[in-house]
Amino acid sequence: MKAIVLIMDGLGDLPNAKGQTPLSAASKPNMDELAGQGQAGLYSSIARGVIPGSDTSHLNIFGYDYREYYPGRGPLEALGAGIELKPGDIAFRANFASVKGGKIIDRRAGRLPTATSRKLARYVEKSRIDGVTVQFMNTVEHRGVLLFRGKGLGAEVSGTDPHVLGPLGVSKPLAPGAKNKKTADVLNKFTKSAMKKLEGAGETRGSRVPANAIIARGAGAYAVVPSMEDRYRISAACVGGGALYKGVAKYVGMDVLEVEGATGDKKTNLKAKADAAAAALKDHDYVFVHVKATDNFSHDGNFGGKKEIIEKVDELLVSKLMEEEAVFVITGDHSTPVERRSHSGHPTPLLISGRGVRKDTVSRFDEMACMSGGLCHVVGTELMDIVLNEMNKAKMIGT
Amino acid sequence: MKAIVLIMDGLGDLPNAKGQTPLSAASKPNMDELAGQGQAGLYSSIARGVIPGSDTSHLNIFGYDYREYYPGRGPLEALGAGIELKPGDIAFRANFASVKGGKIIDRRAGRLPTATSRKLARYVEKSRIDGVTVQFMNTVEHRGVLLFRGKGLGAEVSGTDPHVLGPLGVSKPLAPGAKNKKTADVLNKFTKSAMKKLEGAGETRGSRVPANAIIARGAGAYAVVPSMEDRYRISAACVGGGALYKGVAKYVGMDVLEVEGATGDKKTNLKAKADAAAAALKDHDYVFVHVKATDNFSHDGNFGGKKEIIEKVDELLVSKLMEEEAVFVITGDHSTPVERRSHSGHPTPLLISGRGVRKDTVSRFDEMACMSGGLCHVVGTELMDIVLNEMNKAKMIGT
Repeated sequence: MKAIVLIMDGLGDLPNAKGQTPLSAASKPNMDELAGQGQAGLYSSIARGVIPGSDTSHLNIFGYDYREYYPGRGPLEALGAGIELKPGDIAFRANFASVKGGKIIDRRAGRLPTATSRKLARYVEKSRIDGVTVQFMNTVEHRGVLLFRGKGLGAEVSGTDPHVLGPLGVSKPLAPGAKNKKTADVLNKFTKSAMKKLEGAGETRGSRVPANAIIARGAGAYAVVPSMEDRYRISAACVGGGALYKGVAKYVGMDVLEVEGATGDKKTNLKAKADAAAAALKDHDYVFVHVKATDNFSHDGNFGGKKEIIEKVDELLVSKLMEEEAVFVITGDHSTPVERRSHSGHPTPLLISGRGVRKDTVSRFDEMACMSGGLCHVVGTELMDIVLNEMNKAKMIGT
Repeated sequence: MKAIVLIMDGLGDLPNAKGQTPLSAASKPNMDELAGQGQAGLYSSIARGVIPGSDTSHLNIFGYDYREYYPGRGPLEALGAGIELKPGDIAFRANFASVKGGKIIDRRAGRLPTATSRKLARYVEKSRIDGVTVQFMNTVEHRGVLLFRGKGLGAEVSGTDPHVLGPLGVSKPLAPGAKNKKTADVLNKFTKSAMKKLEGAGETRGSRVPANAIIARGAGAYAVVPSMEDRYRISAACVGGGALYKGVAKYVGMDVLEVEGATGDKKTNLKAKADAAAAALKDHDYVFVHVKATDNFSHDGNFGGKKEIIEKVDELLVSKLMEEEAVFVITGDHSTPVERRSHSGHPTPLLISGRGVRKDTVSRFDEMACMSGGLCHVVGTELMDIVLNEMNKAKMIGT
């Protein structure tokens, strides 16, 4: 049996004054039908009450315990941007930023357009510092990846992005050892040299928020991990737009499909994703479909927008994929309540449906109805084991 | 959002012939209303089916995994008795006892009155043995704390209290090392010298059960642990009467409030506790309220008494505290079935209520109704993470 695993990012929410969540308020006959045919429950991707990050949660969803496999954000972003990494490479998530008098006045340099950041990246794209090859690659808008390749580098360093406005950070080793010190030194030297080079660049000169600095965070060392094929004897594919999610998928050895119009934001083409997922199912056992827009609407505090995108996912994506002969899993990586506008530690609703799946009494897919589901509360990497078992690919312990 | 965490000690019970528990038989409209507004579930403070102690269970309730943080009963009792401890101090829970011909004939010396034990304590309160300062401090009735302060002391020793009538125990090292041997030697020398001193004391001479010995158990070395403020960025207060619970609260850095009439027994002033808790909520984020009487009635096998104290807690304490703008958590540290008259490993009912808490279908607070709750089965330190998340103070793992 094959499996489709649909993750709606930040799906879970809290009830508003009327007792409704975007999911419970949404008209989503197909998800409800799947819930009615199969089993429901709640899912905490890290641990109960703990707030999952986007990276750690997806590792756990794929059965890769983040405590063992998490390489830091940098390498996952780099992989998602299509950058080939070598073991030992140190990667950072990086931003173009605006600095004035040593202080960051805009962490995104006014969210400069991708075309502009592509031009600016040429000024700083390659350098050699203390024998280390330093590469900067822009991705979308102000975003990019910073890559150090060389001998004797450690990943236990703080970044230069303080996450808030204020003094530009200075990278420091977070653990003893010459390797960490070397990485911090190279990052600090790069930061200075990049500011000098960008000062001379004309693209955003004169702007109130010039892109005159590159700030970095999420240092991580890349290492090869056993693929899903190695660990579970299944072939897996990813249909998603967001770089980070594609990065996690690539890290665990999935085929990352390029889908026209899968943008990783609210304008994503759900029909194209449904077609791509259905096609991927022909030659893969496990197809991971990621929808980011639910989370984006939550971060904007937009209840109605989140409700509507859920309805569109139901209409354009779920309706098509439920026709496939496969175990269908729908859940979120975490909750992002519109009221909080940030990730929370509340569990997300979960459903598993398909031929042969035991049936419980739940016939609606939302945070409240799923509390009564037969799956009870699923935590962390348990989900992957449960999915593998429904696929009849589970491992046996003992004889 | 702030939180009130009400622990009714030994709350959980087993059904009698009529299928009722003290909690299900009790009239407790306020707890039922809270259950109806929020989420219910079951809680096992250590692990499913395991019998929690009073000390380990409370450490876990506060998110301090007992496997990492449990210092033994002695230091917690000492802190609860208001004794200032220094890192490395070895503390024991101690009792006045009656010994005849080397055998313990009453482990509590007839539960002698506090006034008597205070007088007797003067005979043995301070001594110096093998370079170690030895202090005995009486607390309530026959109870007290024995404290060793000095260099080179270990805590891995057996006590002199065998927990049953019979030969007076001889302390022995439970692990190799000169430190443990030294502690055992000092305890055995103290035990002999105390018997000699108490032999000369007149207070209980001639009694059938003279207080002529001090027996000790629960050796533990005190160490400073990170406070709740350090770990969770919240300020916490304790409203309770029992020394052990106050000790655990102090150990994790809570402000332990002295409440007039909070006696830690059946006569405790619930109204005073409600007022103290409401006041504490003004300048604390997390208020722990402990009621011991439920457990006392269980140990006496008194179904009716346990039912009535639950009704009083509902009427005098819950009714007032549910008016506060806070997450309200009610549960027990363990079950103490009246039929067994001792702690058991059955889960206790749990409810979490308050603005923004998801609502399940449970509208009664008891062992049976809570089985259908949306919280399912919460275990160990998960409870603290769930409460922190409802307070919007949870930690994020990953980015």
